[in-house]
Amino acid sequence: MPRPAILTVRTHGPGLTDITDCVSAALPPGDGVATVFLRHTSASLLIQENADPEVQTDLLAWLSRLVPPTTDPSMAYLTHTYEGPDDMPGHIKAALLPTSLSIPVIDGRMALGTWQGLYLFEHRDRPHDRQIVVAKT
Amino acid sequence: MPRPAILTVRTHGPGLTDITDCVSAALPPGDGVATVFLRHTSASLLIQENADPEVQTDLLAWLSRLVPPTTDPSMAYLTHTYEGPDDMPGHIKAALLPTSLSIPVIDGRMALGTWQGLYLFEHRDRPHDRQIVVAKT
Amino acid sequence: MPRPAILTVRTHGPGLTDITDCVSAALPPGDGVATVFLRHTSASLLIQENADPEVQTDLLAWLSRLVPPTTDPSMAYLTHTYEGPDDMPGHIKAALLPTSLSIPVIDGRMALGTWQGLYLFEHRDRPHDRQIVVAKT
Repeated sequence: MPRPAILTVRTHGPGLTDITDCVSAALPPGDGVATVFLRHTSASLLIQENADPEVQTDLLAWLSRLVPPTTDPSMAYLTHTYEGPDDMPGHIKAALLPTSLSIPVIDGRMALGTWQGLYLFEHRDRPHDRQIVVAKT
Repeated sequence: MPRPAILTVRTHGPGLTDITDCVSAALPPGDGVATVFLRHTSASLLIQENADPEVQTDLLAWLSRLVPPTTDPSMAYLTHTYEGPDDMPGHIKAALLPTSLSIPVIDGRMALGTWQGLYLFEHRDRPHDRQIVVAKT
Repeated sequence: MPRPAILTVRTHGPGLTDITDCVSAALPPGDGVATVFLRHTSASLLIQENADPEVQTDLLAWLSRLVPPTTDPSMAYLTHTYEGPDDMPGHIKAALLPTSLSIPVIDGRMALGTWQGLYLFEHRDRPHDRQIVVAKT
């Protein structure tokens, strides 16, 4: 097995960044399973629909209502707030959504469905450089 | 490693379909890890209790209240609605629940706990043929 | 590949137990992917921040509000209640949070980010002995 690759992805505040192509390019040939792992606890990885951008904005809107910023009165009981109102909600969203993805690979290509894309989901308000690790077994 | 297998599972509207046996039958002998991957973005895979069917109906009821159809006034802010009131909620549920499962295999058998079963969780109202990919590494 | 290892972890009621070191100790040398699997349906595995303990207590508080005990009037529609008010909520939390984790391994060490730890998340009120399976491929 080749050594796992570490990639850096720049995010631009809350929302999804398509990483399908950069993960695909990091895969060696042959059959197996691709493991994609995010080295952070206030962002997530996600497989979602790649066709209609409204799916992404709706998902972001729904999640922001389920886990509002700590400035929202409904979140006043939270204590981990000194890094900003988006900090603890970021950790909660990161608990609910995946930190790693496991995708079968056939002939060096991920066996994704037609409408599936791989995304990095940023939960913090500001842009971040996020590291992901790609391994194939 | 044998080539990953692609299986088709018929669902019958919202709820869980037990796929433990069909995944088990697709596994080659020996130790390793089974990866089960769903090629869709409005259904999920899930490991849950296999004993009391009330667990499944309660889980379905709870999730339907957390993510109601877009005909529910509380969901009026969503925009991706043209495929029906169960469409965007299906994508949200698919974000919250797993798209892939990774299960250690010992002597060709998944190392599941006594009360664990593997399920395909349909989020759309109508029956669908869903493709899952099973790989062993 | 060495045979997957089965470890037992004692929990102490609702909350997170750090399992990073015991999982690390079970990994054979070399590159690959570690799969950590929990053999239960009322507890979870989770990768979360390992620095500020407030993150863990806040996460527990948020999840307890999203999925309150079945003694809470808002949960009166649930039917699987005979094992106690923490039983069905435990299954719901176990559906929302991971049952397995997949982590790339470089030179025998998990490629975790600086602030990431591995946790067993108990959802039941009483202490339990929980089995986890660790495999490396």
